Amino acid sequence: MSTVAAPKGLEGIVATNSSICWIDGDAGVLSYRGIDIHELAQRSTFEETTYLLWFGKLPNAAELADFTKTLAESRKLDPKIIDLLRSVPTSATPMQVLRTAVSLSSIYDADEADNSHDANVRKSFRLTSQVAMIVAIFDRIRKGKEIVEADPTLSHAANFLWMLNGEKPSETATRTFDIALILHADHELNASTFAARVIAATLADIHSAITGAIGALKGPLHGGANEATMRLLYAIDAAGADPVEYVRQLLAEKKKIFGFGHRVYRTEDPRATHLRRMSEELSKSAGNMKWFEMSRKIELFVKQEKKLNANVDFYSASTYTLLGIDIDLFTPIFAVSRIAGWAAHVIEQHDDNRLIRPRAEYVGPAYPSPYVPVSER
Amino acid sequence: MSTVAAPKGLEGIVATNSSICWIDGDAGVLSYRGIDIHELAQRSTFEETTYLLWFGKLPNAAELADFTKTLAESRKLDPKIIDLLRSVPTSATPMQVLRTAVSLSSIYDADEADNSHDANVRKSFRLTSQVAMIVAIFDRIRKGKEIVEADPTLSHAANFLWMLNGEKPSETATRTFDIALILHADHELNASTFAARVIAATLADIHSAITGAIGALKGPLHGGANEATMRLLYAIDAAGADPVEYVRQLLAEKKKIFGFGHRVYRTEDPRATHLRRMSEELSKSAGNMKWFEMSRKIELFVKQEKKLNANVDFYSASTYTLLGIDIDLFTPIFAVSRIAGWAAHVIEQHDDNRLIRPRAEYVGPAYPSPYVPVSER
Repeated sequence: MSTVAAPKGLEGIVATNSSICWIDGDAGVLSYRGIDIHELAQRSTFEETTYLLWFGKLPNAAELADFTKTLAESRKLDPKIIDLLRSVPTSATPMQVLRTAVSLSSIYDADEADNSHDANVRKSFRLTSQVAMIVAIFDRIRKGKEIVEADPTLSHAANFLWMLNGEKPSETATRTFDIALILHADHELNASTFAARVIAATLADIHSAITGAIGALKGPLHGGANEATMRLLYAIDAAGADPVEYVRQLLAEKKKIFGFGHRVYRTEDPRATHLRRMSEELSKSAGNMKWFEMSRKIELFVKQEKKLNANVDFYSASTYTLLGIDIDLFTPIFAVSRIAGWAAHVIEQHDDNRLIRPRAEYVGPAYPSPYVPVSER
Repeated sequence: MSTVAAPKGLEGIVATNSSICWIDGDAGVLSYRGIDIHELAQRSTFEETTYLLWFGKLPNAAELADFTKTLAESRKLDPKIIDLLRSVPTSATPMQVLRTAVSLSSIYDADEADNSHDANVRKSFRLTSQVAMIVAIFDRIRKGKEIVEADPTLSHAANFLWMLNGEKPSETATRTFDIALILHADHELNASTFAARVIAATLADIHSAITGAIGALKGPLHGGANEATMRLLYAIDAAGADPVEYVRQLLAEKKKIFGFGHRVYRTEDPRATHLRRMSEELSKSAGNMKWFEMSRKIELFVKQEKKLNANVDFYSASTYTLLGIDIDLFTPIFAVSRIAGWAAHVIEQHDDNRLIRPRAEYVGPAYPSPYVPVSER
């Protein structure tokens, strides 16, 4: 069988057709089902955007009401999942716990063995609600706080903040968080989504695919980048350092500055535009410009020095911090949003499946190498 | 950024360099680190083969003794893992449980956050021992039997059968199972290994990668195929049908016959050669030729009708059945072996990493599609 060499990391290789997300990396365009991300960020909600991702069109009023109701009614977790969240050490990272809890939840999902389109949609509702609940509930448990019951009258964004904080969120906080969820909901074949499709393409179930995707998102080259960005801001603040000088030193040491550059975008990441604006607005209303101003200085310096643009992760760090969200919840919150896109991609993969099985270029010892008996080694 | 179209499923696309496994699909050659699989199946052990996969050469006597000792000493599970195995319903599938338990075990692994080469090797020892233990212990628990303590004097293969059955296995059973473990230990960029590398390439940890790989292996187009083969044999037996006529009918109904054909091999799968022989030998020594003869008739018929060769899954079904292993443990046993290869590939990926992030060909609604307000939809 003949093989075709591809660039390392499959850069620029078209691995599948998809009708979910279109990116123009040169022009800085991101769109879901043909609709520009700027339109969705300004005018849509996470529920409506998720409907768009799953069903390929914007819902009418009745469809949106139905969708919202079903999603809210899916805010249920088997007691065994809660037991798991209580049994793990409070030092466990939320991503380890989320990955484990989602895997466990498949055991309590009646549709687990059914990969049909309809069953995948049913499971997608449950997974979307459950991922948010698991993140919020584990955070309460590890802080020794009471679990907050889900409120079916709240939107997905507001209910998450409610279950996390035990206080009804402000309109500004809800809208900011809702926009963050919209911005992160899908991004074509990013590494976690691609992992989900590789797993689903064996005709494994959607829980297996999402569990793998959560594992991929955990990596610092993917979802972990906004955590790394915030750790940098904290380190600069703790050192009382000048942000530009601090980053200049890191660059001199060949250290990676997380939150910059992107495999696909060659211009500004369109999501960064919104997150920068939200970070600035939240800073102004909080009367605390520290993180925004520090971020802005670093952004301009890295752009000038390395010709790299801030990506989605860079301003989500300060935005989430200004929303009062702990640093180690940044990546789990990414999952709270990206579950919408993962589900859309698994559904699409199962609807027209082919096993994803590339080849490797062998660069090891020549074949045939002899099997030398152990006494002669 | 320009993109390059690839065949569906990335067929024939070289996704990475690797020095672990070389396959010549046209000639029917499989080799680990340059050594032919036939040599390894006849002369090696799972421990020695795993050393070869991880360290790139055959061990000398002292290295092999050290490796064997370390692997045996890694037969430990945190009590919380046992608690999980006891808490899930006995109806849970072993693959769901294995995927969840491996994910959970990361929380109790002191090296979890360390992706260095040495830490990855340490975690690989633990994961290899733990995957086998989890499969055996959950099977005991779901059958209401006492858990069998690991025996550090036994080989990996013998200890697994001991912990599964509570009886010291015969030499024939141990050697047969050891060979099955060698044959399944690696297969280049099969779907689960590729999933593991995609996950690891975000610099996520090895537990995340292996958890995702277990999910991929669960799919019937991958590890699930030998289960499907055995279900076919049972169905033919229960119907008292002629195997050839039964399969002829399935083919007429355009049903997939699992255990035949392979993405890479265009000739006989070299692993099938050994599994066919072991299936026949076990049948003779058991005085029960039923499954072997039925398999052989189906093999010859499918070869004649569809020009498809039996693959690794086809004769592993009857081999495992003759070893007294339950049908829903076939895929978990695949994981008990393939963890060796998964670990080798994650180590290799982390040693020279680049994010694996291909592109999709967008075939959805044209951009820009308008955002129509809900009142106008």
